[in-house]
Amino acid sequence: MYMLIKELIGQRNISQLKEVFKKMNAVDIAEALEEIESEKMLMAFRLLPKESAAEVFSYMNLNQQMHIIEKMTDREVGSIIDELFIDDTVDLIEEMPSNVVKKLLKNTDPEMRQVINQLLMYPKDSAGSIMTIEYIDLKRQMTVGQALDYIRETGINKETINICYVMDGQRRLEGVISLRKLVISHESVVVGDIMDTNVISVNTHDDQEEVARVFKKYALIAMPVVDNENRLVGIITVDDVVDIIEQESTEDFQLMAAMQPSEEDYLSTSVFTLSKNRFAWLLFLMISATLTGMVIKRFQNILETVMILAAFIPMLMDTGGNAGAQSATIIIRSLALGEIKRKDIGLILWKELRISIVVGFILGLVNFLRLYYLDKVDLAIALSVSIALLITVIIAKVIGGSLPILAQTLKLDPAIMASPVITTLVDTLSLIAYFLIASLLIGF
Amino acid sequence: MYMLIKELIGQRNISQLKEVFKKMNAVDIAEALEEIESEKMLMAFRLLPKESAAEVFSYMNLNQQMHIIEKMTDREVGSIIDELFIDDTVDLIEEMPSNVVKKLLKNTDPEMRQVINQLLMYPKDSAGSIMTIEYIDLKRQMTVGQALDYIRETGINKETINICYVMDGQRRLEGVISLRKLVISHESVVVGDIMDTNVISVNTHDDQEEVARVFKKYALIAMPVVDNENRLVGIITVDDVVDIIEQESTEDFQLMAAMQPSEEDYLSTSVFTLSKNRFAWLLFLMISATLTGMVIKRFQNILETVMILAAFIPMLMDTGGNAGAQSATIIIRSLALGEIKRKDIGLILWKELRISIVVGFILGLVNFLRLYYLDKVDLAIALSVSIALLITVIIAKVIGGSLPILAQTLKLDPAIMASPVITTLVDTLSLIAYFLIASLLIGF
Repeated sequence: MYMLIKELIGQRNISQLKEVFKKMNAVDIAEALEEIESEKMLMAFRLLPKESAAEVFSYMNLNQQMHIIEKMTDREVGSIIDELFIDDTVDLIEEMPSNVVKKLLKNTDPEMRQVINQLLMYPKDSAGSIMTIEYIDLKRQMTVGQALDYIRETGINKETINICYVMDGQRRLEGVISLRKLVISHESVVVGDIMDTNVISVNTHDDQEEVARVFKKYALIAMPVVDNENRLVGIITVDDVVDIIEQESTEDFQLMAAMQPSEEDYLSTSVFTLSKNRFAWLLFLMISATLTGMVIKRFQNILETVMILAAFIPMLMDTGGNAGAQSATIIIRSLALGEIKRKDIGLILWKELRISIVVGFILGLVNFLRLYYLDKVDLAIALSVSIALLITVIIAKVIGGSLPILAQTLKLDPAIMASPVITTLVDTLSLIAYFLIASLLIGF
Repeated sequence: MYMLIKELIGQRNISQLKEVFKKMNAVDIAEALEEIESEKMLMAFRLLPKESAAEVFSYMNLNQQMHIIEKMTDREVGSIIDELFIDDTVDLIEEMPSNVVKKLLKNTDPEMRQVINQLLMYPKDSAGSIMTIEYIDLKRQMTVGQALDYIRETGINKETINICYVMDGQRRLEGVISLRKLVISHESVVVGDIMDTNVISVNTHDDQEEVARVFKKYALIAMPVVDNENRLVGIITVDDVVDIIEQESTEDFQLMAAMQPSEEDYLSTSVFTLSKNRFAWLLFLMISATLTGMVIKRFQNILETVMILAAFIPMLMDTGGNAGAQSATIIIRSLALGEIKRKDIGLILWKELRISIVVGFILGLVNFLRLYYLDKVDLAIALSVSIALLITVIIAKVIGGSLPILAQTLKLDPAIMASPVITTLVDTLSLIAYFLIASLLIGF
């Protein structure tokens, strides 16, 4: 399909191009246009049927959107914005440089500009900043027949009409009713009698993570956003929530790997930005690792006498790091999914302790058998390494299980207490245990 | 609210309990019942209005569902199953022990049993295994008025009627039409003329990850599932996709932390299972870490002479592990989100190389200044550590950036090539570099 489009553009075969566009999904057209160089892309974009141009535009990447706005006439820009959903327009304005924003706003009518400005004032990642203000508003005294007529008149431009919202004179939300229920009800029935008054809503200032949590919990497809007086100001639809869920997971992945979270696409982010996002944590962790160096210096005497002890340091440290990462990851993820709560900390520590004893004991045993029988290492040394391994796994799992919960108690994102931070801490404790046990067993 | 329910159950205040249940959302009722001990829970469950009992049941946890099925009469079980969506029933059967399954199947009619058996035959995590077979089927020659009448008659039990499916006599999918479009169209219009024929569908055997990818790409709320002859066999709705997306992320989190993925809730998983999930990888990684031990033994001479070199081993290893984890994580996540493809490997390696030089150089410099000026370490040693640090960061980022892509080429999940595996590899290479540079600079 993409090849065909490329070819048709090359041949400037306008009539066939128009035909092909008519049959394609907007998402696929946007994807095809991404592969084509700017001037030709613009030519092709202008051939799109008027009703789908805005939709295709909304699926394009930022660079291409910027290019289109810059190159098109004011009138063309105006007609795209008219057709865009208002939440997409607001997203666009938030991400475009100021000269492009100016051109965008110039081509919207004053009323729309006011709405956009209001939406721009909500804090980043709040429910208000992601909601759309296009929805169906009904009155409780309408009959089903009147409601359906009203929807027929006004519904065509709404992002979703599958759920309709019933408000009183002060725009306070009184209930919701699905289009499905309207369709299957008799047309003389009064909306107020069949609407669902047990409405699940969020406040404009709630964080998007909370929005996603509520969506998942109640398996919703749309949710009303209200202000502090319970007045309906907008709705959030499930497709936006899918994006939020992915974004929040990505943020956790990045935090857990000791990076500054960034929403940008990897390939389009500059080397400088990527380096910057990664540098701070690496520096902090490098400096923290001085602790382990101090432990080694402190036990230099035993190390000088029994050099072979040094050979097991990396194995101990890696196993500790991995064991801690396992616990931290499972706790961080369970917290994010709401499967565990802060109050469960006792249960979690008890569970991690038992797991670490089981896992640590078997690892220690395997390690001992290998060192003593296979590598013929001295008994005292084989024992020291194996006991230190058991203790390392216990320390790692208990620290890995508890730090994320501690972070949440301190109102930090639990995801920062992942592998890197835990490794540094576990390394230090594990080395101390190792050298102390060795000193004792070797009788130093 | 939960306290109120608990109290009312304690007082056996049946009439008020019924009132409260009527006003509550099914999800909230299920959550409240989770906190109540089994016998009283069962008593309360029986008070639920018939039409919401099945819904509440579908939101309860497995243990409680099992308890309810075991304790209820055959008739009660039958009436719950009748009301459950068929995909929820199938999920239930997949997860229940065989005696409970027997009781469940005994209370379904033969026709339903046949459908359930068919659904159970689809491979785990395939589109067929997660779809529901309840949807609205229209014919292209129907008018909008006829279609709406048909929906009114049959639509009440369908999981979603927001999208309707148009099929020919052989049940081959010809098009889709939204309820919204039906409602806003004149009732004499023919469905075949206004339906959308550019249908996005998946095959019954497609993996759920592919299903989620298509849903996200096209921002869908429901998608048809077809067999190899393009016959419609079921639909998947967006609320199931939200669960899939979370599940796939969780799987990646677990793999990346060297654990066997498990879908079970942390608190309800046994210590034995959790230990088993974590043990295999830890053992494998512990044994791989022998490599680092061998490197240290190989360079024992220089270490014996310049003991202080040992003190920097943990810092080098940790920084290498962290730097590699950053690159691996960002590549694994970008692959999962479809932001990068295998063919981008050249671009990625070139980018990671540049990032690693920038980050490694600054880290090395900071480290050198600290060691030489602050800690007054010998010039040769400070230089060895700092150059080794730069090389470690470069190795870590190049390996971290390429291994996940290599895994995908080998049809493995990129997420297994995360921090733990990379750490083991980077540790070894980094130690070799460290000792070689030190030998050279210290003139050993």
